[in-house]
Amino acid sequence: MGGVVRQNVARADAALVARLGRAGVATVSEAMGQTGVMSSRMRPIQQDFAIAGSAATILAAPGDNWMVHVAIEQLQPGDIMVLAPTAPCDIAYFGDLLATAAMAKGCKGLVIDAGVRDTRELRTMGFAAWSSSISARGPIKETVGSVNVPIICSGVSVHPGDVIVADDDGVCVVPNADAAKVAKAAEERVEREEALRQRIEAGELTLDIFDMRKRLESKGLKYE
Amino acid sequence: MGGVVRQNVARADAALVARLGRAGVATVSEAMGQTGVMSSRMRPIQQDFAIAGSAATILAAPGDNWMVHVAIEQLQPGDIMVLAPTAPCDIAYFGDLLATAAMAKGCKGLVIDAGVRDTRELRTMGFAAWSSSISARGPIKETVGSVNVPIICSGVSVHPGDVIVADDDGVCVVPNADAAKVAKAAEERVEREEALRQRIEAGELTLDIFDMRKRLESKGLKYE
Amino acid sequence: MGGVVRQNVARADAALVARLGRAGVATVSEAMGQTGVMSSRMRPIQQDFAIAGSAATILAAPGDNWMVHVAIEQLQPGDIMVLAPTAPCDIAYFGDLLATAAMAKGCKGLVIDAGVRDTRELRTMGFAAWSSSISARGPIKETVGSVNVPIICSGVSVHPGDVIVADDDGVCVVPNADAAKVAKAAEERVEREEALRQRIEAGELTLDIFDMRKRLESKGLKYE
Amino acid sequence: MGGVVRQNVARADAALVARLGRAGVATVSEAMGQTGVMSSRMRPIQQDFAIAGSAATILAAPGDNWMVHVAIEQLQPGDIMVLAPTAPCDIAYFGDLLATAAMAKGCKGLVIDAGVRDTRELRTMGFAAWSSSISARGPIKETVGSVNVPIICSGVSVHPGDVIVADDDGVCVVPNADAAKVAKAAEERVEREEALRQRIEAGELTLDIFDMRKRLESKGLKYE
Amino acid sequence: MGGVVRQNVARADAALVARLGRAGVATVSEAMGQTGVMSSRMRPIQQDFAIAGSAATILAAPGDNWMVHVAIEQLQPGDIMVLAPTAPCDIAYFGDLLATAAMAKGCKGLVIDAGVRDTRELRTMGFAAWSSSISARGPIKETVGSVNVPIICSGVSVHPGDVIVADDDGVCVVPNADAAKVAKAAEERVEREEALRQRIEAGELTLDIFDMRKRLESKGLKYE
Amino acid sequence: MGGVVRQNVARADAALVARLGRAGVATVSEAMGQTGVMSSRMRPIQQDFAIAGSAATILAAPGDNWMVHVAIEQLQPGDIMVLAPTAPCDIAYFGDLLATAAMAKGCKGLVIDAGVRDTRELRTMGFAAWSSSISARGPIKETVGSVNVPIICSGVSVHPGDVIVADDDGVCVVPNADAAKVAKAAEERVEREEALRQRIEAGELTLDIFDMRKRLESKGLKYE
Repeated sequence: MGGVVRQNVARADAALVARLGRAGVATVSEAMGQTGVMSSRMRPIQQDFAIAGSAATILAAPGDNWMVHVAIEQLQPGDIMVLAPTAPCDIAYFGDLLATAAMAKGCKGLVIDAGVRDTRELRTMGFAAWSSSISARGPIKETVGSVNVPIICSGVSVHPGDVIVADDDGVCVVPNADAAKVAKAAEERVEREEALRQRIEAGELTLDIFDMRKRLESKGLKYE
Repeated sequence: MGGVVRQNVARADAALVARLGRAGVATVSEAMGQTGVMSSRMRPIQQDFAIAGSAATILAAPGDNWMVHVAIEQLQPGDIMVLAPTAPCDIAYFGDLLATAAMAKGCKGLVIDAGVRDTRELRTMGFAAWSSSISARGPIKETVGSVNVPIICSGVSVHPGDVIVADDDGVCVVPNADAAKVAKAAEERVEREEALRQRIEAGELTLDIFDMRKRLESKGLKYE
Repeated sequence: MGGVVRQNVARADAALVARLGRAGVATVSEAMGQTGVMSSRMRPIQQDFAIAGSAATILAAPGDNWMVHVAIEQLQPGDIMVLAPTAPCDIAYFGDLLATAAMAKGCKGLVIDAGVRDTRELRTMGFAAWSSSISARGPIKETVGSVNVPIICSGVSVHPGDVIVADDDGVCVVPNADAAKVAKAAEERVEREEALRQRIEAGELTLDIFDMRKRLESKGLKYE
Repeated sequence: MGGVVRQNVARADAALVARLGRAGVATVSEAMGQTGVMSSRMRPIQQDFAIAGSAATILAAPGDNWMVHVAIEQLQPGDIMVLAPTAPCDIAYFGDLLATAAMAKGCKGLVIDAGVRDTRELRTMGFAAWSSSISARGPIKETVGSVNVPIICSGVSVHPGDVIVADDDGVCVVPNADAAKVAKAAEERVEREEALRQRIEAGELTLDIFDMRKRLESKGLKYE
Repeated sequence: MGGVVRQNVARADAALVARLGRAGVATVSEAMGQTGVMSSRMRPIQQDFAIAGSAATILAAPGDNWMVHVAIEQLQPGDIMVLAPTAPCDIAYFGDLLATAAMAKGCKGLVIDAGVRDTRELRTMGFAAWSSSISARGPIKETVGSVNVPIICSGVSVHPGDVIVADDDGVCVVPNADAAKVAKAAEERVEREEALRQRIEAGELTLDIFDMRKRLESKGLKYE
Repeated sequence: MGGVVRQNVARADAALVARLGRAGVATVSEAMGQTGVMSSRMRPIQQDFAIAGSAATILAAPGDNWMVHVAIEQLQPGDIMVLAPTAPCDIAYFGDLLATAAMAKGCKGLVIDAGVRDTRELRTMGFAAWSSSISARGPIKETVGSVNVPIICSGVSVHPGDVIVADDDGVCVVPNADAAKVAKAAEERVEREEALRQRIEAGELTLDIFDMRKRLESKGLKYE
């Protein structure tokens, strides 16, 4: 069938990536109207760690990591690899050798709707990964796929150069064209939440802060 | 449809809560005849941590956390929120702002058969949570549910004021009326197990301690 | 129906066990042609920890841990218990008392396609476990099973005395008769990977190291 | 631990059962405020068939069908057996011999959050079943459970004598005390739906019938 | 947040729809390079039945079917509704009344990555449906979503006006722009397969027809 | 890695196959001590249909059906193909063309722990199949596997020439060496069950037939 490697793809703006990364997955998703969040089956292999970067996408046959080798040549500093298999699969496409190669290119981490392995080594190396599976079962190299084409990964559309934000809560995708607007909305939300947090710590109730009592009553809530 | 908030609900006795918490989930469940354990899909967001408290129950529509706001007003020190969605759902009902609000009321933690987010922040704050999912996807506030009514959470019946015990092994529910009896049985079990442990460490076999050999033989076990 | 306990079963060679353990699950599986890996549902209860040992197999009825008691008498230093239930089950067959008994016999850990409990205590004791579930729900003792017979655990055939290698990536089984050959192949692979790592760190691409470009082109990969 | 068999339990009223059965699962659940529906994992072994009856409840150990034998003695014409295992289990508790015994007592069918077998024979016999699994794997008879006690089956509370309604869409439970009120509400809903159907068939839109356009607009819906 | 209803969306060409429908899901997917197939969790509620049509897309909040009412006004003869929830959900968005309304508009069927109900009635009415769940649990009407916008349904991107092909094997999506090319490729494949079938029925082996023996040997296959 | 095709493998005895097929999956499994049953995820694509035959085993890479082509050449009348993928996979390995080829060799059906497609055509052709998935997503042909070697399929060990029994309840495997003994035990069980059925139809209770009352009482069952 043949595949395609798109070279010279536009990257996400580094300053926007940094701002979105500071906001975190939950806030960024809220700033996009609760969209962009990958399935909750995507879990980090490390704890209390977050990254943000520019998506380098990989579309690969089930259990076939050939395209990861191809993708690594295309990586630029600040990229995060995002791999979608063409059918559900829990085989590991990625381990410590490929992480070594990706880090040599300045890659920050991996998001994969399939398996990873050498998870202890990846943690030691500081290479972050979010995956739907951890498995020692290794891949083959027989079928070509594509690199830096639009993919659907774990329920979300990802274009090369989209902003990937990943932390303990999961993974969120911000379309490149929306990054500035979303960063601004996310920062405003962070500010609002900080103000809220102070009022809440001071003892105010969200029922009052958000003036919810009348609407609750009108919807039929009764106190006994 | 309308919902109900039951106020002035009787809480579990603090001394019994403390005794059951010391015994731990596995021992408490054994003391209740292996009942009361929520589904194994309920996992803690933190490790090596345990809590016990009095259940403040929440029944909420899928992906709708309005009732959490309502419930927080009702919280008393020592309460643990227990939330059951009215249909399966992995959306996050709860994050760091609601945890701030709950902690301001003395709430110890959350048990939820759905999603949580801001898990890193919750760990930092010392707010414990057990959930069936971790997800950054946020909730809406459209449908009223109920607070402090009997619910079924993750396969177990929970009444407001029941004792909740939660640790690394999962979550267990002790009906309020049985708490004293169960606490006593659990403590006796802890004592028996301590004595057993010493005999086992000294090299005795459980086959002999429990006199199992004859029954095994009568059931047909053969040694080759 | 009756069950069987095979005594005086041949153990895996300790030196081979050590060599396979040093290679790790992923490398050992690759050295066996990507076979021997248990399902990715098998997850460790601890992090950054690895063991290897000789399989002591247990075949047990759903939720019935009687045979664990029987198996413990048969344990020898260096053994790893491997338990397969005769039907899917997430009940805990194993907790801290049985771990105490197993450690008294020199057992290194447990691999179980079912539940464990007392996970915090097991971590504290240094008793390693891989399981498909964590649950506080306890077992019964009614049905005899078998000890040290061939079993199928989590998709893989295990004979007593096979080498079990387990780490953060999961669990792998090496048939006893193949252990020497696999250990050698694994060590050669480790060496090759170390050499590869140095070339990759120096900036070489796997595309060039493995001479992949022509084959990719012949399979239709296009660069844009 | 011991178990309990409650004899002389009050049955649901036959006329109410018939009225609820005619309304069907979806309508009855709507008439109860969208409550009472078991998990969607409960599927019928037959197609285009519906039953309603009075719940005869069974609480049973995993893979242990001893209590089914006990329950059958307690059955009365019009009963539906409802079995909840005390832990998740896909083993078959029930086949054609027990169906023969249950039919001899006038039992209409089985609802089980576990496995059934002899499904072809059950269809031939006209014995209806809803289960979470179909499996040929058979049960044991070692542990006593309880009959006609309150249980939680597939996420829903069931008391003996509650009305069970089951059809192609799944299973719904109506608390005995609410049966008359729910039957009335369900019948009113059937009438309303029949009137609605005629207007819809005549070409009216539900947007107009329910006057939804203004509320949609006020919530921000835009037409392009 | 607000939603959007796109009106006057271009439909798939009826002749192309008919041609793709005749080819069937498996053949159409092969003609697109094994792409376009929704997840295998999408199952038909009827057997031995196939439809093809033009996608009318619906994006809807979990358990909220308000947008189905909105979408039905937009339907044209030959449309197939395709609904993606914004988070995983098994609640029924659709039953016999909405099917009546959809059929009145000439709609052929429904593809939904969530629940349906009234499945027996839908079969009787001849309204075809593919869903990831069957459930009697009903929806709410609180949150606006969108109609005829691009969605991701069950792992596949769907634009309004794309060709939907659905049969016993599942659901496939053909981008509108590719429909003519894919229809031609699918028909050629049908022809080739018909010729193949005759040779195979006459006793030829695919090993010989496709000249596989040498390549198998070169890849290391041994006959014993 | 290479693969192996074992030719001239001994088949199961046709008379034993017929006897085991008449007994059915549930009875045969009981006659083997409740062993040999594949996972309940194995479901038939047809209803009210049963087959029995001699296993022709296939070990194949995920989503790669090359070995099915190889296996078909080896088929003999009465064989049933049994395919295990080397990693979990829901891609279809098999459709109507391969069924045509298999039927030309006298093959009775397929058991596959992965996907099938063209299910309607298979039903029409009378080619029976049991699978863990139905999917239109097709396979590749890149990696060699093995034919007629021992495999583990859906949790059960299968050797070439073992007896496969499959019906609406699932799939059971009888080791060739045990076939005669199991057939006899199964037939005796059928006879016993027929006698039992008559007593049960005549109104006797299994509690009395099996003399269960005393043992129930001794285990603590109470009647209220």
